[in-house]
Amino acid sequence: MTTTVSAPTVATRQNAWQHHHVLDLDDFTVAEIETVLNLADRMREVLDRRIARVPALRGFTVVNLFYEPSTRTRVSFELAGKVLGADVISVSANTSSVAKGESLIDTVRTLRAMRTDAIVMRHAISGAPYLAAQHTDASIINAGDGAHAHPTQALLDLYTIRSRLGAIAGKRVVMVGDIAHSRVARSDMWGLAAMGADVVLCGPPTLMPRGLRPGDRPAHAESALPRVTIETDIDRAIEGADVVMALRLQSERQQGGLLPSLHEYAQMYQVTEARLARAHPNHVLMHPGPKNEGIEIAGSVAAGGHSIIEEQVTNGVAIRMALLYLLSGRTDLPGDGEARA
Amino acid sequence: MTTTVSAPTVATRQNAWQHHHVLDLDDFTVAEIETVLNLADRMREVLDRRIARVPALRGFTVVNLFYEPSTRTRVSFELAGKVLGADVISVSANTSSVAKGESLIDTVRTLRAMRTDAIVMRHAISGAPYLAAQHTDASIINAGDGAHAHPTQALLDLYTIRSRLGAIAGKRVVMVGDIAHSRVARSDMWGLAAMGADVVLCGPPTLMPRGLRPGDRPAHAESALPRVTIETDIDRAIEGADVVMALRLQSERQQGGLLPSLHEYAQMYQVTEARLARAHPNHVLMHPGPKNEGIEIAGSVAAGGHSIIEEQVTNGVAIRMALLYLLSGRTDLPGDGEARA
Amino acid sequence: MTTTVSAPTVATRQNAWQHHHVLDLDDFTVAEIETVLNLADRMREVLDRRIARVPALRGFTVVNLFYEPSTRTRVSFELAGKVLGADVISVSANTSSVAKGESLIDTVRTLRAMRTDAIVMRHAISGAPYLAAQHTDASIINAGDGAHAHPTQALLDLYTIRSRLGAIAGKRVVMVGDIAHSRVARSDMWGLAAMGADVVLCGPPTLMPRGLRPGDRPAHAESALPRVTIETDIDRAIEGADVVMALRLQSERQQGGLLPSLHEYAQMYQVTEARLARAHPNHVLMHPGPKNEGIEIAGSVAAGGHSIIEEQVTNGVAIRMALLYLLSGRTDLPGDGEARA
Repeated sequence: MTTTVSAPTVATRQNAWQHHHVLDLDDFTVAEIETVLNLADRMREVLDRRIARVPALRGFTVVNLFYEPSTRTRVSFELAGKVLGADVISVSANTSSVAKGESLIDTVRTLRAMRTDAIVMRHAISGAPYLAAQHTDASIINAGDGAHAHPTQALLDLYTIRSRLGAIAGKRVVMVGDIAHSRVARSDMWGLAAMGADVVLCGPPTLMPRGLRPGDRPAHAESALPRVTIETDIDRAIEGADVVMALRLQSERQQGGLLPSLHEYAQMYQVTEARLARAHPNHVLMHPGPKNEGIEIAGSVAAGGHSIIEEQVTNGVAIRMALLYLLSGRTDLPGDGEARA
Repeated sequence: MTTTVSAPTVATRQNAWQHHHVLDLDDFTVAEIETVLNLADRMREVLDRRIARVPALRGFTVVNLFYEPSTRTRVSFELAGKVLGADVISVSANTSSVAKGESLIDTVRTLRAMRTDAIVMRHAISGAPYLAAQHTDASIINAGDGAHAHPTQALLDLYTIRSRLGAIAGKRVVMVGDIAHSRVARSDMWGLAAMGADVVLCGPPTLMPRGLRPGDRPAHAESALPRVTIETDIDRAIEGADVVMALRLQSERQQGGLLPSLHEYAQMYQVTEARLARAHPNHVLMHPGPKNEGIEIAGSVAAGGHSIIEEQVTNGVAIRMALLYLLSGRTDLPGDGEARA
Repeated sequence: MTTTVSAPTVATRQNAWQHHHVLDLDDFTVAEIETVLNLADRMREVLDRRIARVPALRGFTVVNLFYEPSTRTRVSFELAGKVLGADVISVSANTSSVAKGESLIDTVRTLRAMRTDAIVMRHAISGAPYLAAQHTDASIINAGDGAHAHPTQALLDLYTIRSRLGAIAGKRVVMVGDIAHSRVARSDMWGLAAMGADVVLCGPPTLMPRGLRPGDRPAHAESALPRVTIETDIDRAIEGADVVMALRLQSERQQGGLLPSLHEYAQMYQVTEARLARAHPNHVLMHPGPKNEGIEIAGSVAAGGHSIIEEQVTNGVAIRMALLYLLSGRTDLPGDGEARA
């Protein structure tokens, strides 16, 4: 017996999916986001099988091009590709000819000339994936560029919220911590706002993005950020929250003079059980990882009953499967071949 | 024609194999060790085929998580997985988010959340794989933790001795060199003692483990090591030996003041042809690699007719295939599909 | 429907292909080179399919053993292996037990004992792959050794010239730049001379190989290099050229006192549009990459209509597929299985 996973029909999908690259969510329509989330549901079903392999992307070549170290995102993409039968090759800047000074554009063009179909790129410089996308017809997936964007993380966050709470629209989603330097927060804002969530940002004023600090002009007037609410008091922020998302505090911020001390920061902004008592009784607690327990999040909260942090990780594989599949332009998920094994 | 490798039946195997992790051999029963060695015989047969691939572990995901550099062990596991059709992903601490300070426990839980089935871990700290095993239901395989244990090396040593000498029980097995710092020696001791070998440790007193140095209380009285014989004179140690195993001398030991000089060490403890003249005429010479020729072993001995060093390497792949297969809980080795190719 | 790619018959191929290793082109016959190029034509056809995968090398294990960093060559071999269904494992000196001081010979013998079929080796020391080949019966493919040789690059250059210009014999091929330190130039010279091209080397006298500098004895009298023409004036060199190949200038040469300044070098030897006006109207422009635009080559030239640099990259995958296949000793390219997917 061969099990077949039927996918959205070509016609439906092509209407809702116009992207050749995934650079950020600020140019995603609601229909496109929903296409990804719906497909991720099917991918999650594949992932949960005893033998989680389907040959949908056989012959599709993905290169993980990471100019910054990463375990979770790189492995997540590598697994996403392998579950679908794609070949995934990892290139890290440490061991690559990047050491010879080859330019980003040259590298991307070279990978494309070798018949790479998709390049998953992480880079310390904001905008690097955009530059790459202008010089290749391989699909570029932004896996984090500087402090700018991390769209696949945002999509997995949206997916996780939707699958846990049933909906995104109308939910109060509170992000706590270093908003200014968080590419996760930035992409999440776009996605959450598009899907109708009520987004609240909470953190010390020095860690708020430009345009969102006290005294700045209103954020949503011709700003480069979507409509959000700013709240520097964590207790008021968490009040009634459906989702509380703690962001990683990058300890190098302290040296930059943006923080008094880690201890003081933890006192004021750590997500603790006591503070979560003000949230909605059915709230969920999220973190993009890797987390600093005892700083931005209490260990008991991370391991607690409201935490869906590991669910985020699992869903990340499903979301990346969905994106690779959509970018491939292939139009059917074939039988999984399980019966043959 | 499709060749089928029949495996031990479920009932038999479940009786003899109770492990979800492979951390060290000190908790392996004789029956469990024999289960692994018998299965390795079948795996070795697969490995010796012209097309050495069977899809027994299709959809099984192995992550090599190496916090210390390694070629031979990492590649051995990678090949073992690939021969059985598993997907193997390598993460090295150099290029991983370990650089971001993610904790071992977090990393292991994250990999599990991504549906990793087995994590092969090497770590500089003794006990690290035990910590990992307490926090995940992925199978942890210890590929070397500090100076503590290296159970897959010990199993391949047992397998190689058995396949060369026909038996392990009653054989005189002499390990020469830096016993104190050798995770190989420590795991070998457990395995060899369990299988009834007569284990002799030989080396300078400063390189003997605590509890086994001259003047220490008897090793086998409530000690953390199995019953072994200590012999600081290499000629007496090798007398009548069936197996001589030279251990790698870690040159950093010299700086620690544990050795007078490499030259003097080589004079006193190098395994040479002259010294091997005292061994059993059919003795075999082993080394876990990588070896320092001219220090703990003479080049002529390593390349000589009694050396089975490369046989150890080949058997290492077979042992790791057997372990991955046992940990997978799968119960049949299917046809190899050779006929289809 | 199953598409089958028929390959040269066993008899034909065995006559023309005698190599177990690919170390340099100086011992390749014309018939052998033609065997590789003809097979590359078929491989290029596979590569251009929508699903570019055939299981011709199923169960064949390739290890990329890179002691120097590389993206393009390593990924090219990795893709070449994967397109043919081989398993490819990458080992880089950074993360390997090379860090423990294991010798090259030991590493190669260990990899072979693990059933590695082919080792693709890059090493900073000229001759390292020859040493390896003497100590293993795995196939060694030289992917660049010091300033000595880079035979797979030369074969892809030959293939690209032949497929673009229809022939190699009689074509005027001008290599410009740092000839002395270029392993690409050295291997290209052998291949081009064997195939009957008219090879012209152009660059500053300090960057000419020994034996080819002004005042040296004639290069082709008992020299270790094939018959070539030396021309230090770039305009005279390019006059009537069918192929102009710009070589990467290694900036570390400047510190060695071999160059006055990068600016002055670019003035005298940069391949520019103005200079290419003297070439044959249908000339092609090549570069082995990675390139320094603005130094040895003008950006407009690299991106111009005569540039076939990216074609070289694509053909590199096809050439490496052909070599892996020839070294495997397998004698048929089976159906690609596309119909099954």
